Amino acid sequence: MREVHNRGMNARFHAPDAQAPGEVVPLPDDEAEHLTRVLRLKAGDAVRVFNGRGDEFDAVVEQAGKNGALVRVGAAQRPAPEARVAITLAQAALKGDKMDDMVRDAVMLGVAVIQPIVTERAKVTRASLARSQRRDRWQRIAISSAKQCGRATVTPILEPLDFGELVEALAKLALPQPALMFVEPDAGQDATRLSELDLSPQRAATVIIGPEGGWTDSEIEHAASVARLVTLGGRTLRADAMPVVALAALFTIWGEF
Amino acid sequence: MREVHNRGMNARFHAPDAQAPGEVVPLPDDEAEHLTRVLRLKAGDAVRVFNGRGDEFDAVVEQAGKNGALVRVGAAQRPAPEARVAITLAQAALKGDKMDDMVRDAVMLGVAVIQPIVTERAKVTRASLARSQRRDRWQRIAISSAKQCGRATVTPILEPLDFGELVEALAKLALPQPALMFVEPDAGQDATRLSELDLSPQRAATVIIGPEGGWTDSEIEHAASVARLVTLGGRTLRADAMPVVALAALFTIWGEF
Repeated sequence: MREVHNRGMNARFHAPDAQAPGEVVPLPDDEAEHLTRVLRLKAGDAVRVFNGRGDEFDAVVEQAGKNGALVRVGAAQRPAPEARVAITLAQAALKGDKMDDMVRDAVMLGVAVIQPIVTERAKVTRASLARSQRRDRWQRIAISSAKQCGRATVTPILEPLDFGELVEALAKLALPQPALMFVEPDAGQDATRLSELDLSPQRAATVIIGPEGGWTDSEIEHAASVARLVTLGGRTLRADAMPVVALAALFTIWGEF
Repeated sequence: MREVHNRGMNARFHAPDAQAPGEVVPLPDDEAEHLTRVLRLKAGDAVRVFNGRGDEFDAVVEQAGKNGALVRVGAAQRPAPEARVAITLAQAALKGDKMDDMVRDAVMLGVAVIQPIVTERAKVTRASLARSQRRDRWQRIAISSAKQCGRATVTPILEPLDFGELVEALAKLALPQPALMFVEPDAGQDATRLSELDLSPQRAATVIIGPEGGWTDSEIEHAASVARLVTLGGRTLRADAMPVVALAALFTIWGEF
């Protein structure tokens, strides 16, 4: 039997093919590159792998080189716990790197699904997102964040939707209810403070968060039939801080912390 | 009487000398520069000013030029509400720009006081912070964040303390109790999950958050006599996301949202 080295012990890799102890499975190209080129691990090094569907295992590098990396799956291990409330985060596209940071942080906090949306005041279109392959990029960031925070589940990044399509999807219950749409404190009397909502523990929920320029009046009106309008008290928060603050607040209410 | 223009209407400036309607007061140099050079406002433009101690006023630019800016203080206005629980955030120095972001976000969320601390695993010393005038920089960021988020109170940035001095200050009740020190999920059985703490509404509290490398065992042991050790559930959060997540969680528990 091969001697096992421990220098890769704290490294975790996404091995979607890992199902059970004893198997030898390949790593995806990105992961193989991380293992061989960045961390310079070699055959015999001990690592951890997770399959993205909730399973985590000890593993040993079986082969690592230019042709990729293979690992031998070992004993199942307990991954970091998943949130009991499966939150779908419907997040308006933010500018530049802000969306990358949002994906990283939302995955770290434990969202179940990320649904990017394109709103009237977003600075992007679905076509420009598709051209620049942003969804693939966000999916890679979601995997990378799962590696760092200990989740064994990879958060899927859905195909971006226009705001109207989001409202339709909610109306058809194609996304989880209740849906909570976070709005500015001055968005009018139809909005309720988070602390005043009756938010008994849920199995799932959709959280809708706007872009830097905020929602238009017509978007708010349009959403009011399918979502509850929610404020976070009286202060104005930066758009790119909103997802972390809103998720942290909801996970607190639902006993996740 | 001078004609009043509205193009500066949404601009807010820190005018520490503003006390009552009718006065003509100077703006600090940074603020005068922002008014004249960046926003290119002129005598007669309507603005808002706040004095950093909770008072907010309409104002009109009286003079703006190379020699600074004067504003005439107008009617008192209601600023964004301050948090009812005055949180002192004792935050370990983070790397690079992360500390700047932390100050900006903590002010936006509504902390009362920021106490930078130097811990064993921080990558800085008090001497290096002093040499690079970091406290002045953080104070300017705190003012700038107050301008953006609508607070009329400027969050003071205290002189950095070493961790041992922080513990002493807490022991002498020189900082508010209760003190909550956030630790990693694997920090041992002395830590309590936030959801399991009895956190009835407080007037004030100290929140202690560590650096990228985490706390040392001896720091945790040292703090245990003056602070409650708290975890945020089972997932590992990035150090630079911790202040926002912890503050959002506490403000949720204390009904601030």
